[in-house]
Amino acid sequence: MSELRFDPVKKIWSVIASERSRRPEDFLVRRLTANGEHTEVCPFCPGSEDKAGQEIFSLRDAQGDWLTRVVPNKYPAFRIEGELQRFAHGMYDCVAGIGAHEVVIETPKHHMNIGSYTDKVLKDVFTTFRERVLDLKKDTRFRYIMPFKNYGTLAGANLEHPHSQIIALPVTPDIVKTKLTSAQEHYRNKERCIFCDILNQEKDEGSRIVYENQDFTAFCPFASSLPFEVLIFPKRHTHCFEKSDDSELSGLADIVREVFRRLYKCLENPPLNMVVHTSPPSVRRPSQPNYWQSIEQDFHWHIEITPRLSGIAGFESGTGFFINPVSPESAAGFLKGVN
Amino acid sequence: MSELRFDPVKKIWSVIASERSRRPEDFLVRRLTANGEHTEVCPFCPGSEDKAGQEIFSLRDAQGDWLTRVVPNKYPAFRIEGELQRFAHGMYDCVAGIGAHEVVIETPKHHMNIGSYTDKVLKDVFTTFRERVLDLKKDTRFRYIMPFKNYGTLAGANLEHPHSQIIALPVTPDIVKTKLTSAQEHYRNKERCIFCDILNQEKDEGSRIVYENQDFTAFCPFASSLPFEVLIFPKRHTHCFEKSDDSELSGLADIVREVFRRLYKCLENPPLNMVVHTSPPSVRRPSQPNYWQSIEQDFHWHIEITPRLSGIAGFESGTGFFINPVSPESAAGFLKGVN
Repeated sequence: MSELRFDPVKKIWSVIASERSRRPEDFLVRRLTANGEHTEVCPFCPGSEDKAGQEIFSLRDAQGDWLTRVVPNKYPAFRIEGELQRFAHGMYDCVAGIGAHEVVIETPKHHMNIGSYTDKVLKDVFTTFRERVLDLKKDTRFRYIMPFKNYGTLAGANLEHPHSQIIALPVTPDIVKTKLTSAQEHYRNKERCIFCDILNQEKDEGSRIVYENQDFTAFCPFASSLPFEVLIFPKRHTHCFEKSDDSELSGLADIVREVFRRLYKCLENPPLNMVVHTSPPSVRRPSQPNYWQSIEQDFHWHIEITPRLSGIAGFESGTGFFINPVSPESAAGFLKGVN
Repeated sequence: MSELRFDPVKKIWSVIASERSRRPEDFLVRRLTANGEHTEVCPFCPGSEDKAGQEIFSLRDAQGDWLTRVVPNKYPAFRIEGELQRFAHGMYDCVAGIGAHEVVIETPKHHMNIGSYTDKVLKDVFTTFRERVLDLKKDTRFRYIMPFKNYGTLAGANLEHPHSQIIALPVTPDIVKTKLTSAQEHYRNKERCIFCDILNQEKDEGSRIVYENQDFTAFCPFASSLPFEVLIFPKRHTHCFEKSDDSELSGLADIVREVFRRLYKCLENPPLNMVVHTSPPSVRRPSQPNYWQSIEQDFHWHIEITPRLSGIAGFESGTGFFINPVSPESAAGFLKGVN
């Protein structure tokens, strides 16, 4: 089983994933095969359902054919079975790698790029995310549940067939904790949602907005770490992605399709990551009695889309902050200009 | 001039570097040219000194020929001239991009890889780092000064000629602040240096140690975020890299050469980053009167060496924590086994 280990100086968790154990030569292979794993038969295509693993969930059409399928990750970073053990190793802290690690097969079609997604496919994907998050939130061992997508080898995708992942974690990750705390502090001081304040300033200024529809706004964040980063926020204040109704998911599919299409055209099919940040399960822990109390008011779910246009360099890894050669105002300008 | 912008939710700074301004098509070019910028004439080779920019510092041999040279970065993220302005932009916070961004040309030789560095070259490089850090620490506008090296395109290097960089920042980066605070808390609670405690546990266990000499220890950290990460610590408690004497720099050159050589052999010349973390300038700010008081006791300078074997994926970017498929115990085992 994998193990979460805590760095007592940097205060971050890392997952030491023995199930994915690699030897030095494996990394060389990964560097040389730039287009991901090529297998004779794609395990995610129709007809290979038995190769993809036991089905956890599927969305099906009127004929009973699947539109999306959810299966366990073949090389899971976390295992669903077992007790949530927390233990010390000398001065270090560890947690057993309990969690969930699922793969969402987004469509039966093997070939699809971010420029060719349709509203229909994206709505199916987000509906699948919603159903899985609702189910995983029932498990009280989990502290954070996150749907995300890696697109392209440089963004971490190993298989070509369109897919995304859902992970459920036994700890609240550091970045998420910071976001939750910032939102909570802001609300405590001002009785306003920090994300709603950001949306209002973006709307007033206008220069960083990429696209909007009735329910959602997409913009390049003011302090973008990376070029062409895009955030998507629901206009209505709401902390839970998984409480979105079908009409909201249609609006979400529309805006994601449009952002994908513009990134595809503007940056010629860039590798990218997409992450859905919804409020964590409302576990009230004794040490933090009020931690989750205000989350309905202070958190606002959102999606981060991050093209991966260059590697991480020493400056970034040493400081945690980024040198971004494209201002969010010009990135938004380029994306707005796409026909 | 570039601008530092603060993300009010993630609580991190980003540098929006207008001097490096890029258009969408530039990123495509970067993706396609995997081996860095190829210019007709290398600006860092002997004979092209006028192309590299105004010399800030050089180390020279008895004949007056240079061994290392320091020049301003041609595309600086920060400018040395100007006032340290801090200002608001609506709800957002900004700081003018004042700082230093220097390039260290490590040797007159154009071709050198991490497998072929000699003790002599590395000692010259670290001596150059020492002299520049001592000089930059005199400037009271700077909050953090960091020498670092990007090696290979995937680790952010744009030029082939062996070089590293030194950056001086007008804010303390978030990761650094966390490290300083962890060290300070540990010292306050226990009157012991957290890094000395780590060194002791590593020495007791032994399984993560890669190499050691009289003055330094190299090990794979217990909670390694990335495969084959290596930390180098001076055995003697000391907070300041730049106070190292010539004999200590010889020991440092020896251990870095050995770690580089083993990574080169084990991972076939991997791209990597090396970062030197020394204590920040001891500026005592009114808001944090005791912040720097104990730094001599609680901080311990160190070097981080991080091979870049795979990209950043959605899970990492969404949570800030990493799935590492190689345990530090097996990474250390592989590196120890190199002849």
